[in-house]
Amino acid sequence: MNNKTWSGRFNEPVSELVKQYTGSIDFDQRLAKWDIQGSLAHAQMLHEAGLLSAEDVAAIKQGMAEIEAEIKAGQMAWSLDLEDVHMNIERRLTDKIGDAGKRLHTGRSRNDQVATDIRLWLRDEISTIQNLIQALQAALVDLADANADVVMPGFTHLQVAQPVSFGHHMLAYVEMLGRDFERMADCRGRVNRMPLGAAALAGTTYPIQRETTAHLLGFEAICQNSLDAVSDRDFAIEFTAAASLVMLHLSRLSEELIVWMSPRFGFIDIADRFCTGSSIMPQKKNPDVPELVRGKSGRVIGHLMGLITLMKSQPLAYNKDNQEDKEPLFDTVDTLIDTLRIYADMMRGVTVKPENMRAAVLQGFATATDLADYLVKKGLPFRDSHEVVALAVRHADSLNVDLSDLPLQALQTFSGLIDADVYEVLTPEGSLNARNHLGGTAPAQVRAQVARWRQLLQAQ
Amino acid sequence: MNNKTWSGRFNEPVSELVKQYTGSIDFDQRLAKWDIQGSLAHAQMLHEAGLLSAEDVAAIKQGMAEIEAEIKAGQMAWSLDLEDVHMNIERRLTDKIGDAGKRLHTGRSRNDQVATDIRLWLRDEISTIQNLIQALQAALVDLADANADVVMPGFTHLQVAQPVSFGHHMLAYVEMLGRDFERMADCRGRVNRMPLGAAALAGTTYPIQRETTAHLLGFEAICQNSLDAVSDRDFAIEFTAAASLVMLHLSRLSEELIVWMSPRFGFIDIADRFCTGSSIMPQKKNPDVPELVRGKSGRVIGHLMGLITLMKSQPLAYNKDNQEDKEPLFDTVDTLIDTLRIYADMMRGVTVKPENMRAAVLQGFATATDLADYLVKKGLPFRDSHEVVALAVRHADSLNVDLSDLPLQALQTFSGLIDADVYEVLTPEGSLNARNHLGGTAPAQVRAQVARWRQLLQAQ
Amino acid sequence: MNNKTWSGRFNEPVSELVKQYTGSIDFDQRLAKWDIQGSLAHAQMLHEAGLLSAEDVAAIKQGMAEIEAEIKAGQMAWSLDLEDVHMNIERRLTDKIGDAGKRLHTGRSRNDQVATDIRLWLRDEISTIQNLIQALQAALVDLADANADVVMPGFTHLQVAQPVSFGHHMLAYVEMLGRDFERMADCRGRVNRMPLGAAALAGTTYPIQRETTAHLLGFEAICQNSLDAVSDRDFAIEFTAAASLVMLHLSRLSEELIVWMSPRFGFIDIADRFCTGSSIMPQKKNPDVPELVRGKSGRVIGHLMGLITLMKSQPLAYNKDNQEDKEPLFDTVDTLIDTLRIYADMMRGVTVKPENMRAAVLQGFATATDLADYLVKKGLPFRDSHEVVALAVRHADSLNVDLSDLPLQALQTFSGLIDADVYEVLTPEGSLNARNHLGGTAPAQVRAQVARWRQLLQAQ
Amino acid sequence: MNNKTWSGRFNEPVSELVKQYTGSIDFDQRLAKWDIQGSLAHAQMLHEAGLLSAEDVAAIKQGMAEIEAEIKAGQMAWSLDLEDVHMNIERRLTDKIGDAGKRLHTGRSRNDQVATDIRLWLRDEISTIQNLIQALQAALVDLADANADVVMPGFTHLQVAQPVSFGHHMLAYVEMLGRDFERMADCRGRVNRMPLGAAALAGTTYPIQRETTAHLLGFEAICQNSLDAVSDRDFAIEFTAAASLVMLHLSRLSEELIVWMSPRFGFIDIADRFCTGSSIMPQKKNPDVPELVRGKSGRVIGHLMGLITLMKSQPLAYNKDNQEDKEPLFDTVDTLIDTLRIYADMMRGVTVKPENMRAAVLQGFATATDLADYLVKKGLPFRDSHEVVALAVRHADSLNVDLSDLPLQALQTFSGLIDADVYEVLTPEGSLNARNHLGGTAPAQVRAQVARWRQLLQAQ
Repeated sequence: MNNKTWSGRFNEPVSELVKQYTGSIDFDQRLAKWDIQGSLAHAQMLHEAGLLSAEDVAAIKQGMAEIEAEIKAGQMAWSLDLEDVHMNIERRLTDKIGDAGKRLHTGRSRNDQVATDIRLWLRDEISTIQNLIQALQAALVDLADANADVVMPGFTHLQVAQPVSFGHHMLAYVEMLGRDFERMADCRGRVNRMPLGAAALAGTTYPIQRETTAHLLGFEAICQNSLDAVSDRDFAIEFTAAASLVMLHLSRLSEELIVWMSPRFGFIDIADRFCTGSSIMPQKKNPDVPELVRGKSGRVIGHLMGLITLMKSQPLAYNKDNQEDKEPLFDTVDTLIDTLRIYADMMRGVTVKPENMRAAVLQGFATATDLADYLVKKGLPFRDSHEVVALAVRHADSLNVDLSDLPLQALQTFSGLIDADVYEVLTPEGSLNARNHLGGTAPAQVRAQVARWRQLLQAQ
Repeated sequence: MNNKTWSGRFNEPVSELVKQYTGSIDFDQRLAKWDIQGSLAHAQMLHEAGLLSAEDVAAIKQGMAEIEAEIKAGQMAWSLDLEDVHMNIERRLTDKIGDAGKRLHTGRSRNDQVATDIRLWLRDEISTIQNLIQALQAALVDLADANADVVMPGFTHLQVAQPVSFGHHMLAYVEMLGRDFERMADCRGRVNRMPLGAAALAGTTYPIQRETTAHLLGFEAICQNSLDAVSDRDFAIEFTAAASLVMLHLSRLSEELIVWMSPRFGFIDIADRFCTGSSIMPQKKNPDVPELVRGKSGRVIGHLMGLITLMKSQPLAYNKDNQEDKEPLFDTVDTLIDTLRIYADMMRGVTVKPENMRAAVLQGFATATDLADYLVKKGLPFRDSHEVVALAVRHADSLNVDLSDLPLQALQTFSGLIDADVYEVLTPEGSLNARNHLGGTAPAQVRAQVARWRQLLQAQ
Repeated sequence: MNNKTWSGRFNEPVSELVKQYTGSIDFDQRLAKWDIQGSLAHAQMLHEAGLLSAEDVAAIKQGMAEIEAEIKAGQMAWSLDLEDVHMNIERRLTDKIGDAGKRLHTGRSRNDQVATDIRLWLRDEISTIQNLIQALQAALVDLADANADVVMPGFTHLQVAQPVSFGHHMLAYVEMLGRDFERMADCRGRVNRMPLGAAALAGTTYPIQRETTAHLLGFEAICQNSLDAVSDRDFAIEFTAAASLVMLHLSRLSEELIVWMSPRFGFIDIADRFCTGSSIMPQKKNPDVPELVRGKSGRVIGHLMGLITLMKSQPLAYNKDNQEDKEPLFDTVDTLIDTLRIYADMMRGVTVKPENMRAAVLQGFATATDLADYLVKKGLPFRDSHEVVALAVRHADSLNVDLSDLPLQALQTFSGLIDADVYEVLTPEGSLNARNHLGGTAPAQVRAQVARWRQLLQAQ
Repeated sequence: MNNKTWSGRFNEPVSELVKQYTGSIDFDQRLAKWDIQGSLAHAQMLHEAGLLSAEDVAAIKQGMAEIEAEIKAGQMAWSLDLEDVHMNIERRLTDKIGDAGKRLHTGRSRNDQVATDIRLWLRDEISTIQNLIQALQAALVDLADANADVVMPGFTHLQVAQPVSFGHHMLAYVEMLGRDFERMADCRGRVNRMPLGAAALAGTTYPIQRETTAHLLGFEAICQNSLDAVSDRDFAIEFTAAASLVMLHLSRLSEELIVWMSPRFGFIDIADRFCTGSSIMPQKKNPDVPELVRGKSGRVIGHLMGLITLMKSQPLAYNKDNQEDKEPLFDTVDTLIDTLRIYADMMRGVTVKPENMRAAVLQGFATATDLADYLVKKGLPFRDSHEVVALAVRHADSLNVDLSDLPLQALQTFSGLIDADVYEVLTPEGSLNARNHLGGTAPAQVRAQVARWRQLLQAQ
């Protein structure tokens, strides 16, 4: 018997080169578990719709259980001749149980089958990703809690701007990851809709009951249009865009970790088990993990662009182009999961060096805004006060000292409103504590946010 | 008086070339309306917090009203020396009302101000886009309704697959746009959070009341971390990704319109007012609009890539890089709005040519699957039936006739199960009506979906 | 003995998760052949510079030969503990030949070593790609030659524009591929420069002779700055951009093949061995290969974007991010090579259907421009003649006939300049032959171009 | 008279919305100068080919001169009704000189006309860009020359690796820009080929002489296939890819300038005229220009992605999609030219702070490799020596001192091979001078490279 289920119409077999070029079994065997899940639900539905006997269903269940065991045991002989995971499993099933296996494909097509498999798979992976996002958030929240009072320079333009709490800085990333979690949840909702029943593109002539299959498979909704169901890859693009944003956020944190660990900064250290050395320079300890994460952001972003290009201008309904959606999607999921996992671990291996951070605060006139605010509170309009302080900074800079190092007399040459109480607002801690409103950097606010996030993370 | 509000610290003025390179007033003046909106709410909050007198607030309101009128009348003299929309408006205000204008900037910075402006602006634009998506959906639903019974070839691989209803095909795009609408709504929720109060990056030393400002401005939530608030551009990327998907969907429909209007297909015509001719070929009537839409998908996708690159590896908090977020965002919004508007118009100018569609159905063995299903219903396992039909098709193809043109006797040489009733399932209309389940192409299903969408579009 | 060559400085071993995340041996073992090539040249140079004894060189050669044999035989035990291909080979060598193996790393670092390996590898792959581009060009030239006289509709906007020779159409792609070949050659020149000798980033304290190594390895030039040498990944981006253009060109040809094979067009057929069928629709014969090529263009373009993102804003010199350059580069090369190979094969399996092409020419007023030119030659300014013909087309269109079907009398109502000789210019063949200048579509020109390309392809 | 030159065939005028959506006159009027250039050469060729009288040519020349003057004076009334720059100029010409103007379009089409215009324009812009690249190289070479002896830490992984010369570091960028110059030159060669004569897509029925036009316009070659000539946008993509690489390089240098100007590094200062301050923080001096350059790299990369997407899967020959090539191309050119110009200026405004650089060298065990090499030269295999030094570094690190601060006795506990002469190799200057080979960081090598580049820059 011919190996190809569609070859009656053809005059010559597919060439070996073409088989390899068009076959997907090398990568889509990963979907086997979900393919079987979908087939079992489909069989059950066919039975409930009177299209498949109870005996057939029982045989299919038995056969599939054996196949799943074979796959787990690494004993399944995947064949390139059978193109993909769907045909491989179906053929194996038919070898085992005969005609019942052939009847399983009633009322469906590989077009809706693959779309179903990949949604079932991605739905599970997104759940894993959501958990990992929260695990990373938890690690950052702990770090924020432990360092709520640690003062570091807040930067804008990588110039010292104002003192901030290191805990506050960590919580900025918790917020970003919070949005990432939301986007994953939104995306999962759109992934979790069932294309099965669309058949090749137009539905089927059998009286199928899609609600039954959807219920069995735990889908939240059913794709309402068969043409759309088999050609829609929005979910892949939306997921990869959401994944790109996660990677972007981690590329930003990585950039900061790398800068902070550079000896001139020396704000943090990363535990040795996350670093590697050099084959030539014996002193080196390199922050490999954050660097790789920064690099791998390109990988995921590349996949996003690849998938978008893939879909551009494709006519309905299914085209073979779509087979190219799988590898970038698989690699995006793997990269994201590995990265989130290692990142949570690594953040728990970060050592904070408060003394270096404080030294850096004192090197950049970080409390200049506090002086300006001080003058405003004494009655000067902000814009005028800003100019007064700018001149004072210029003077201190020329002497190579901090504002707090200038004697009162010197400060008063810039404004008569300045008094001895000015020195309180010029300390990093005074500056920090003064920003005590929702979202501000005061340690009290940091602690409130830590509490808020702990509650949120527990609830979800 | 010096023009620059920050120049006390500087020894030399900014060079002209730098002014032009770094200035944003040429494009960000577009935000003026929302900048004023934000300033008025900020002033009111400052007053309620006891930081600004009632007189000052009144003066600011009066001054801002005048400025808004000047801008509308095109009389505002935007100055590159003042860098951006924020400083231009503030300076104009101070010129008008004196110190009260200078006091307005108390407790905020341009960093949180620009983030607020752009969110207020984008929130409004997304609402417009959502309305336009629905207007286009309505046009497509009407087209689907009018053509529920029109049979055309459904394609996979651009080969004739099975007959589908033209209305069904239109509804596939209604589904895609439905997801686009959802994504815009999800994105709008994340846009509609208030960064104001983050000040430069760390919050402010004034006892501001962010809930008050958020309430006045209609924000649904408040950014909980000041560093994140000024550096977050997720919303720009998420929006542009959602916009890219809209454009992708329209690039697909455009591709189909172009193919369908090509003379060999001749499935549709597009009204002359949406087409242009050629300066050299007198006979030409070109589908310019769909072609441009297909082309403009590249534009929006390019902006997505640009914005992602922009944010990659940026350390916290605000960096000047972020100024580059505006032009791509503005152009994405403009392109999307123009495209949706013209598309809804154009779809109402599409003429359907049912006779050409039907002729095409008969040219591609579109009912072969129906024959296979017919045999399955007579007891043959699907895989065997598939092979039988493949051989019949090969035979018919060699005679250059359709399956329905083969005499019964000829058909029966392929399977004894075939009977005279086979000819019913071999008609396009028979095939269409047979796919009568949720999501299927049967005209009855198309009409049900039309009704469902009309209700949904009315409800939203 | 410790497995890590750099671990003396470290307090704890690298975690397993980190090893997997940061290790590259899974994919960079592919570079083994070129790594050994580079090492042998390095050893020889060290010897000539008096830094390595003849005995050591002999031992290294012997050891490397054994290792290469082991790799070929699949007997090399690649170890993740040893991170990458360089350390794996070096360790194996040291196991075999002792201290001589340890001395091999004198005056170099993994930073310049990997940069050298990848350039040696890519140089070879580009040569392969250049050959495959020419093989595809040769197939297209043959097709052009065989079909120089076949007339098909030339399209603009997918509307029938003017008759063209099918051979001429094929030659358009030969031109594109010709530019691709040039770009590959230009890129190869920039790849073929030697970074070896840059050591970690600053050069080495040993008196190395880079000219010697360059000569031994066949490099055309030597990287002149050590920092640049280890951090430059321009060549990867430039190559991937050139590869993207190849894929773009093939995505365009694929799009055309798919449209042409659609039954309404029916311009060509593709041999069965390049097509697949459907598991559900027995009549289907799908142009899988062109569809996949169209899809795979997204893959390569995604890699380009990924690589660009990778390099954005990286400070000098080497960063771990750069490890991420390999997988996209490998996959780009593999995709391009497979695609070019299969495409040349497939184009030789294309059957042309001249009768369908000619029928399509007659369906779109393809010779309207010829009529306009006819009138110009009789003295009418082009713009006026254009208007005359537009009105004639409109008239013929309303009657559903071609211009050549209108009686002379009818034509003369549009312009008195029209005479009986007009019918010659209204035939497709007349139109074709009339465009007989350099670059024009006349069969004589097509044949001249075929001859020109055959000579060029032979020469290179 | 009707405004549209192609409207005889149409039943209704183009809608206003469509005019705006499809019109290009807003942006393509920029091509006017080159459009006129092309038209004059075309007229001259028509005359030489006997297709246009001398009187007509004279009238065209006179009319075009007037039009060019009107454009320069801002008196040209560009009309959206006339779609684009070509029709606007042609109509204005016809208004001025009558039928001779109408005859100018003989033997060409807007399809080959716009392709010619944009190549003429881009050819000129690339020349400008090449000059600006060299001007920036010259600034960097001067900076390298002045700082050949300044020692700074060379970084890998942003960890201190080995001492390098600041001049050497600058020269790394000169190398990158050198490759950018080469790529621009290669690209210019492919831009500088003439599509004119391809007419709409198939060539023309007039006996045109393309060699004549090419000669008049200074084209190096002639596009050999008319279909390719009007549809090829390779040059736009290749140019934008080359421009992206320039921007990538400058994004890397910008990243470094930003880090170096951060107070903890304090390696450089940038002149005030290239910086701006903060509206809220009076002490701030921000490196706006490098930050914007880093940000603008995203802009250009986005255009590259947009252009690639634009061309993906476009069938031959001209499609309206192609109109979308202009804006990204224009913006890429403008961004690149502005950026290169300001960058050369800015680099001449960089102040180097050698003392801070030297302090940083001493903080990171930068000479550890030198110690390892020292031991190798005394007979230890490199791998063993590496381990010895790693342990010594670990010891010094625990004492918080540099290797050179350890007493000889302490050093000797790690290896008996260490002698008093070790302290020479442990100085930054000793380390620098020891890397004295082609491409190494020794000041002598830096000076040699400065001389080499000065000669190269003069020659080109």
